[in-house]
Amino acid sequence: MCGIVGYIGDNQAAPILLDGLAKLEYRGYDSAGIAVFDGKEIKMEKVMGRLKVLEELTHGGATMEGTAGIGHTRWATHGCPSDTNAHPHFNKDHSIIVVHNGIIENYAKLKKVLEKKGYEFVSETDTEVLAHLLSEYYNGNPAETIQKVMQRVEGSYALGIMFLDHPNHIYAARKDSPLIVGASKEGNLIASDVPAILRYTRNVYYMENEELVCLSREHIRFYNIDGEPLEKTPVTIEWDIDAAEKGGYEHFMLKEIYEQPKAVRDTLNPRLKDKEINIEELGMSDEDICKIKKILIIACGSAYHAGITGKYVLEGLARIPVEVDLASEFRYRNPIYEPDSLAIIISQSGETADSLAALREAKNHGVRVLGIVNVVGSSIAREADNVMYTWAGPEISVATTKAYSAQLAALYLLTLKFAKVRGVITQDRYLSLQSDLIQLPEQIENLLGMKEKIQRFANRYLAADHMFFIGRGIDYAISLEGSLKLKEISYIHSEAYAAGELKHGTISLIEDNTLVVALATQEQLYPKTISNIVEVKTRGAFVLAVTNFGHKEIEKNADYVIYIPKTDNFFTNSLAIVPLQLFAYYISLGRGLDVDKPRNLAKSVTVE
Amino acid sequence: MCGIVGYIGDNQAAPILLDGLAKLEYRGYDSAGIAVFDGKEIKMEKVMGRLKVLEELTHGGATMEGTAGIGHTRWATHGCPSDTNAHPHFNKDHSIIVVHNGIIENYAKLKKVLEKKGYEFVSETDTEVLAHLLSEYYNGNPAETIQKVMQRVEGSYALGIMFLDHPNHIYAARKDSPLIVGASKEGNLIASDVPAILRYTRNVYYMENEELVCLSREHIRFYNIDGEPLEKTPVTIEWDIDAAEKGGYEHFMLKEIYEQPKAVRDTLNPRLKDKEINIEELGMSDEDICKIKKILIIACGSAYHAGITGKYVLEGLARIPVEVDLASEFRYRNPIYEPDSLAIIISQSGETADSLAALREAKNHGVRVLGIVNVVGSSIAREADNVMYTWAGPEISVATTKAYSAQLAALYLLTLKFAKVRGVITQDRYLSLQSDLIQLPEQIENLLGMKEKIQRFANRYLAADHMFFIGRGIDYAISLEGSLKLKEISYIHSEAYAAGELKHGTISLIEDNTLVVALATQEQLYPKTISNIVEVKTRGAFVLAVTNFGHKEIEKNADYVIYIPKTDNFFTNSLAIVPLQLFAYYISLGRGLDVDKPRNLAKSVTVE
Repeated sequence: MCGIVGYIGDNQAAPILLDGLAKLEYRGYDSAGIAVFDGKEIKMEKVMGRLKVLEELTHGGATMEGTAGIGHTRWATHGCPSDTNAHPHFNKDHSIIVVHNGIIENYAKLKKVLEKKGYEFVSETDTEVLAHLLSEYYNGNPAETIQKVMQRVEGSYALGIMFLDHPNHIYAARKDSPLIVGASKEGNLIASDVPAILRYTRNVYYMENEELVCLSREHIRFYNIDGEPLEKTPVTIEWDIDAAEKGGYEHFMLKEIYEQPKAVRDTLNPRLKDKEINIEELGMSDEDICKIKKILIIACGSAYHAGITGKYVLEGLARIPVEVDLASEFRYRNPIYEPDSLAIIISQSGETADSLAALREAKNHGVRVLGIVNVVGSSIAREADNVMYTWAGPEISVATTKAYSAQLAALYLLTLKFAKVRGVITQDRYLSLQSDLIQLPEQIENLLGMKEKIQRFANRYLAADHMFFIGRGIDYAISLEGSLKLKEISYIHSEAYAAGELKHGTISLIEDNTLVVALATQEQLYPKTISNIVEVKTRGAFVLAVTNFGHKEIEKNADYVIYIPKTDNFFTNSLAIVPLQLFAYYISLGRGLDVDKPRNLAKSVTVE
Repeated sequence: MCGIVGYIGDNQAAPILLDGLAKLEYRGYDSAGIAVFDGKEIKMEKVMGRLKVLEELTHGGATMEGTAGIGHTRWATHGCPSDTNAHPHFNKDHSIIVVHNGIIENYAKLKKVLEKKGYEFVSETDTEVLAHLLSEYYNGNPAETIQKVMQRVEGSYALGIMFLDHPNHIYAARKDSPLIVGASKEGNLIASDVPAILRYTRNVYYMENEELVCLSREHIRFYNIDGEPLEKTPVTIEWDIDAAEKGGYEHFMLKEIYEQPKAVRDTLNPRLKDKEINIEELGMSDEDICKIKKILIIACGSAYHAGITGKYVLEGLARIPVEVDLASEFRYRNPIYEPDSLAIIISQSGETADSLAALREAKNHGVRVLGIVNVVGSSIAREADNVMYTWAGPEISVATTKAYSAQLAALYLLTLKFAKVRGVITQDRYLSLQSDLIQLPEQIENLLGMKEKIQRFANRYLAADHMFFIGRGIDYAISLEGSLKLKEISYIHSEAYAAGELKHGTISLIEDNTLVVALATQEQLYPKTISNIVEVKTRGAFVLAVTNFGHKEIEKNADYVIYIPKTDNFFTNSLAIVPLQLFAYYISLGRGLDVDKPRNLAKSVTVE
């Protein structure tokens, strides 16, 4: 996920591009760049780091003259964040320049062909293929050239392109990545999303797949992939600027909750092909996988909770002993390293200080380290022996949702792969688990439909002081994350407890109307959890149960029930967590708190 | 720890004995028995189980005629709870009968001698030795005979004795076990403790070590071990009956907190001899110990927290990988059993349902099971392959204190033993750790002296809604137990957090004046924990720190500091927990709650 902008008009382009990119930083922020015609040539500045580094470099754009340009803010997928991999990308003689959001799936093949023809690549990106391909096909007619390239590449893209010999035009095209065009009196704009241009215009054209646009100061001309002109009608944007950045959602958190089907799908799909699980980046031979004697999962916060689920799933299915540790504890406890161990470090940002220190600690003791990380090129990604990326895209809200869901998906894939290679599950089970995985994104989507129901329920508990989340096995892991979500953004003191352990102390806190959220998604533990529900009911608790479709008799014991669709017992976390995220969100909203930026917390904890 | 009573007077003895035993049930309750002269012979009834079983058996004593008798309520040490091992114990021809509280240390030697002389033993108790020895020495003069026996035996005892041919007397003697004598108009009494007789008299004589007493309806005659008569003055008891049962303490919990030095000493001392650690009951050869590849610790509640400390200590010193599980989770999670594993089940009562089920689960998978249990002959003690008893005596208060401390002591011993046998610590370290262990009881004793200081502090926080306990490593384990203690009896929602993990979510709950109890007893983690103290201080927390003597500079950051004496880093839990127990106690007391019987909780959870 990256963000692109473009401008051509009466005013200096660079400040407008930087301003637009600032509004798109939620789409990526590992590096940024802009390119502007200065009358003679195309000038480019690009640099690794947050946008403010580029702003400082260009004095807010003041140092870059010219009234036409394109810009990009990056979220790395192909190639680490670096000055070189940042966009825009030039062709060889700097006559064509391109910014790109999306993934060119056949880039490796294209690159080989181009290299044979003598093209030299300076970056590791898939995007550079486009610059050279445009160069290869260029016949003096930019629109025709772009059409040819569009026909040649596979994958997704939103492109902004400039040609040195057409200084009065900028070009753009899209397929499967968002792109809009804005028309204003002082010039025309392109952008990945509305907020980038809302300051200049509310007249917006939405580009469709395989469409191409040519912008000048005065005109906007649309074409289809065959070069036929298109008539498009602008729409008027009514949103305020603030809402626009969140794509119409009130908060990033809600937006990211809604992005979970995509995050899970993007994490699963590239690795699920032909009924096999293919995790190339794992870098482990079947022999390596068979040799694993022990897995150490090390993480903090929600990633730690994903790790706890990982333990249940890896032990349950792949039958490998797993020890899960808080990174801050692991690094100081002088752990015992056993031969043939694999350490898995889970981190959204890839910069979590304790997790990074734990990684180094494990590596120093000769343990192979696999990172499960969301940010390409982050420290953990760089230092781990291998990285399995969660393709959740940038997460802005401090309380993680989609990155957590993507971490679960990555752990499921890993488990199935290990279980298969080690020969501990049957082919039938292997296939049926895969088919359950494939259904998860749509099932999550369906659960999002109960938003209003959950909001109504949450509104009853806005004044609560305490809550408890209980469950057994994987349901306990879900409880931990559900409780943390609530705690983080509602400031209600909630606590997760293994349901069977409640009566060894914590049950003394249950009073009349204390809300207890009971997770009961594990079929084999269902009757036991029901007993625990009865225990807390007897002490006056109000019980919200989350269980699988079909367990209607739970309504005899619980006061309120949320049903999740049927999936394998090992995967219920991915579904059951969704209503709990929504619950936490609506409690925080109802209490009038700053959902996306809760007090005292930071998104990525880069200190110990 | 057992309780004894005796009565001789105008009234039927049996109901008085039963009533007295009821007041002593806090001293033991695994079996009970009484014996009464009925004019012709000494009639005895004894039975396994709580006192009410004996009461039912004898119709409240009504079925047993006679006005002189002795009684006993048992807490097993030598020999399992059973009808046969219950007291009183007869000599062969039923002419002498004895009840005993204490331990005859040279009983094995004496038993051998007596067996050679043809005495047959029917029970497994050390007490039966006394019955036969009295028989052996009997010369028609009970007092002289008892003196001889007193000179012959080593160990501790409070004895009640009757001789068939002296039906108008009962006899008693003591050494190192409590014994009092009561004088009333309707008869005279003996008992282990004041409450047993308070209904009949407030005139009490305190027996001293190696004293002997002969009681008739009218007289009470005291002698020293050489048979010389003693003059003793009675004291008048002013306590009410309720307070008396608790030995003057307001609650059993406080009494048990104060019994911790003894509980720890009794658990340590028999196993610490000649600078070696000797755990005979372990039943493992050095070879067995060296073969252990993994330890599973399984427990519930506070015993689980002892287990978490156990993990740190066993991994840190003996370098054996340890996995700690909640019993309710372990039994259902289909764990992976690795060869050469040892399972340790920790339980005060030995009857915890989930722990027992986990024990069976582990045994069924061929894992050797060691029980660390406080109640002799309990289910877990019976079913484990080996049992290491914690000699804490009966614990009445629902919130455990002394049993927890004794569990820690047992785990330390086990660790040192394993570390030594496996050759992973030097002899110097082995000796210095032993010397630290030996000092623990006295150090705990000293900490109890800060009772008032802690009460004053606790009184400031009686109205708190939330509290947090934070620490790293073993300090985290201490936090868990400190938090549970508070929760159980104060109903304040407190939560323990690994200090380094706070900032991944829970820190959002910290507000102005939230009390955070910070444990900082681990020298190597001290600066890290200080950073976490500063973090919560910055958010307005009031910080109560518990740290080692000498860290005076902590007062710069914490608002209130409790210092614990110097011990090895691995043993600080035993000291740091004491102020936290007192804190929980005084909060509960100040809030006017039922300290010993908190709502919703039971002492021993024998259901799932």
